[in-house]
Amino acid sequence: MALIVQKYGGTSVGTIDRIRNVAKRILELSQEGNQVVAVVSAMSGVTDKLIGMAKEFSETPSERELDVLMATGEQQSIALLSMALHELGAKAMSITGAQAGITTFGSHTRGRISNIDPTLMNKYLAEGNILICAGFQGITEEGMIHTLGRGGSDLSAIAIAAALNADVCQILTDVDGVYTCDPRVVKDAVKLNDISYDEMLEMASNGSKVMQSRSVEFAKKFGVVFEVRNSMNNNPGTIVHEELPAMESVAIRGISIERNQARVTLTGIPDQIGYTAEILGALADAEINLDMILANTAHDGQARQSFTMHANDLGRAQAALKPVAAKLGENVKIETEAGLAKLSLVGIGMRSHSGVGATAFKALADAKIKTGMISTSEIKIAVIVDESDIDEAAKVVHKAFNLHEINEIEDSSI
Amino acid sequence: MALIVQKYGGTSVGTIDRIRNVAKRILELSQEGNQVVAVVSAMSGVTDKLIGMAKEFSETPSERELDVLMATGEQQSIALLSMALHELGAKAMSITGAQAGITTFGSHTRGRISNIDPTLMNKYLAEGNILICAGFQGITEEGMIHTLGRGGSDLSAIAIAAALNADVCQILTDVDGVYTCDPRVVKDAVKLNDISYDEMLEMASNGSKVMQSRSVEFAKKFGVVFEVRNSMNNNPGTIVHEELPAMESVAIRGISIERNQARVTLTGIPDQIGYTAEILGALADAEINLDMILANTAHDGQARQSFTMHANDLGRAQAALKPVAAKLGENVKIETEAGLAKLSLVGIGMRSHSGVGATAFKALADAKIKTGMISTSEIKIAVIVDESDIDEAAKVVHKAFNLHEINEIEDSSI
Repeated sequence: MALIVQKYGGTSVGTIDRIRNVAKRILELSQEGNQVVAVVSAMSGVTDKLIGMAKEFSETPSERELDVLMATGEQQSIALLSMALHELGAKAMSITGAQAGITTFGSHTRGRISNIDPTLMNKYLAEGNILICAGFQGITEEGMIHTLGRGGSDLSAIAIAAALNADVCQILTDVDGVYTCDPRVVKDAVKLNDISYDEMLEMASNGSKVMQSRSVEFAKKFGVVFEVRNSMNNNPGTIVHEELPAMESVAIRGISIERNQARVTLTGIPDQIGYTAEILGALADAEINLDMILANTAHDGQARQSFTMHANDLGRAQAALKPVAAKLGENVKIETEAGLAKLSLVGIGMRSHSGVGATAFKALADAKIKTGMISTSEIKIAVIVDESDIDEAAKVVHKAFNLHEINEIEDSSI
Repeated sequence: MALIVQKYGGTSVGTIDRIRNVAKRILELSQEGNQVVAVVSAMSGVTDKLIGMAKEFSETPSERELDVLMATGEQQSIALLSMALHELGAKAMSITGAQAGITTFGSHTRGRISNIDPTLMNKYLAEGNILICAGFQGITEEGMIHTLGRGGSDLSAIAIAAALNADVCQILTDVDGVYTCDPRVVKDAVKLNDISYDEMLEMASNGSKVMQSRSVEFAKKFGVVFEVRNSMNNNPGTIVHEELPAMESVAIRGISIERNQARVTLTGIPDQIGYTAEILGALADAEINLDMILANTAHDGQARQSFTMHANDLGRAQAALKPVAAKLGENVKIETEAGLAKLSLVGIGMRSHSGVGATAFKALADAKIKTGMISTSEIKIAVIVDESDIDEAAKVVHKAFNLHEINEIEDSSI
C-alpha cells in the first residue's frame, strides 16, 4: 500500500463535472490499494471573483482580510470534492490547511510554511479515509488564516508529502509534464521522463511556467520526489528528483523561452567607487525585478552597465535612472531597447560537457540570429535575442542538441 | 465606553452597497466611543447557492462537508465587511467562529455551543479594533468546522454577548421589533417596547418568526438582555429581558398567527393501556412534529385523540397512522382536516389576570368565528380556527384586549 499525495489545480476542479472526474481518478487510486491525500485549489474563477469583490472596497484591500476571503475558495472545493467521492461510495473527508496542521509565517497573502503537524491527517488516513486537503492555505501561530501566494497549492502538496513521508507526490496540471521546449514553438519537443531539481528550477525561473520556483526549492530541500502529470489523461509525466548520473550523459536537457524582455544600458559612467550600488538601489526602490546584470570594466575612466527586465518595467526603470545618471556625471547616457527575448539552455550535463556554448552559438550564427547579452550559471546559458528571432532560435538550438531524441539517448547511456 | 454586540443578517449584508451601509452604522457606534463586535451572516443567497452545488452530488450530502462548505459564506462576509470598514478609515478585524473561541458539540449542521473562550476577542478589542465575527459557526473540540443550524447567527451574537459580558446586544433584522401582532394582518398592531424571554419564546414558537426559540432560550439561561431592531433605520426596537412587574399590568401582550395547520383525529379507540404510546410512536417514527395533542377520556369504552401539525405533514401522518388504527381495533377511524390556522394569545399577565379566555372567546363568538381545539400554557392560550377566519380572529382579539394601546397602558401603570 502506497501513500500518494496528489495536487489538483483550479482548472481540474473548475466545474461540477470536472470535480466528478477528479473524484473518479482519486477513487481508482484508492481502489488499487493506495492511501490518497488530494490537495486542491479553488475552482477556477472563484479566487478572481472574490478578489473582484474585495476591490469594490479598495484597490489595496487589507491583506489579512484578503487571506480570510480567498481561503474560502479552497474550503469550498474540498467540501464539494469530498461530496463527489461520497457519491461514488468512497470514504472521504475534507480538511482545511489549519486542520492539516500547516503552520505558516511571513506576510499575509504570501505566507511561508514553517511546520506541518500531521497528527490529524495520520489519524484520518489510519481510519481508512481519502483525505481532501485545502491547498494554498495554512494558519499562523496565533491562529490567523494565511494564504501562501502564487503556486501555493503546489507548495502545500509538496510540504504535505514531506510531512506524511508519502511514497508518491503528483502535481496534476493541464500539461503532460516538462518538455525539452515549449511544444507550441518547437514541434518535435519531447516530454522529459525526469528532470533534476536544479534543472527544474532554472526552467521554472526562465519562463517554463509549469511550477513556481519556490515549490521546487521546497521539494529539493526536503528531498520530495514529485511527478508533474496531466489531470485529463493517464500518461506518465515528468519525475522531478535529485540528479542522477544518467542525466549528465547529455549536455543540455531543456530550452526555455522568455518573451517581452527589455534592456537598459548606462554608458559613460565615471569610474568611482559605489556607482553600482547607487544604480541598483534606485532600481530596487522602484521595485523593478532585474534579470541579467552586466557590468564592463572601465576603460578610459568610463564604465558601462546593462540590465534586462520585463518590458512592462522599462518606463519605470528609465524614470528611476534619470536622476541617478544626472548625479553620476554629465557624460552618462541611458540607452533602452525593448522587443527582446531570452533563450535559456539548461542542463546539469553542462558541468561535465565542454563546448556547449560553442555548439549553441554556432547554431544561432548559422541561422543568422543576432545575439546580445549573455549570462551563465553552472547549469544554464542564457542569451538575449530579438523577440522576432526567438522561435527560430529555440528551433535551431533544440535541433543542434538533438533534444527530440533525448529520452532515447539517455536510456541507451544507462 | 460601552461594549456593544450587534448581529446583522444575510439581507443586511446582501450586496456590496448594503455591506457599506452596515459598515457606516458600525463606524458611527464606534465613533460614539463604543467598542463594537458585529456578528454577521452570509450574504443572502450565498448559503442557498452553496447548498445547491452540494445537491448536485447528493440529495443528502454529508453534513460534515456541508458545514465545511456553508461556513465559507460567513467567512466571506466578515472579510468584506472588514474591508468596508477599512475603506471608511476604521480599525477593524474579522474573526471566524473558531478564532472567536466558539466551541461546539452535537450533530453537524445543527451544532450547539458548549463554550466561548473570549481571550482573542478581548485582546483584539483592547487593541482598539472593531471586531467582525462570523456568525452561525464554531469549531468542535477536535477542530472540525461546525455550523449552528437555523437562527445560528442570532445564537452566536447572544453567546458572544454573554462571553464578553457586553453592555448591549442588538439583533438587527428587517423588522422594527416585536409587534403585538403581524402588522400586515392587524393594521394598528404596535411595536412592543419590551417583552419577557418567556413571552418571546411563546411568540417565536407560535409563528412570530423574528427569532428562533433556541436563541431566546440561550439568552434567558445566561441573562443576556438583547434588542431586536431594524438594520435599515435607527428606530428603537424591542428589548427582550427578564419579566418586570409592569409587564403583568396587562393580560396579553401579543398575538401570533400560524397558518397551514391540519388536524388528525382518531375515534373509536378501545380503551386499553398503551394506545397513546403506540399512536405517538408511529407519528414520531414518521418524523412528524406534532403541535397540539388532545386526548379525551374514554366513555362507552372508546377514546378519541386529536393532533395538529403542519399541513405538509398531513399525508404522511395519515399513512403512518393507518396500520396503527387497524391494529388498535376495527372501529378505529381516522378523520383529517386541513385548512386550519392557530391563533395564540401570549402574555405573562395571564398568570394574574382572570377572564382572559372569556374575553377572547367572546370576541371570537361575536365575530361568528368557529373555534376548534384549544391548548394552554401558563402564559399562552392557543386556539384552532378555520384558516379563512384567522385574519379576522387576530383583529377582533387584538381589539378586545386594546393591544394597539399597550405601550401607553404599561407606561401609565409603572
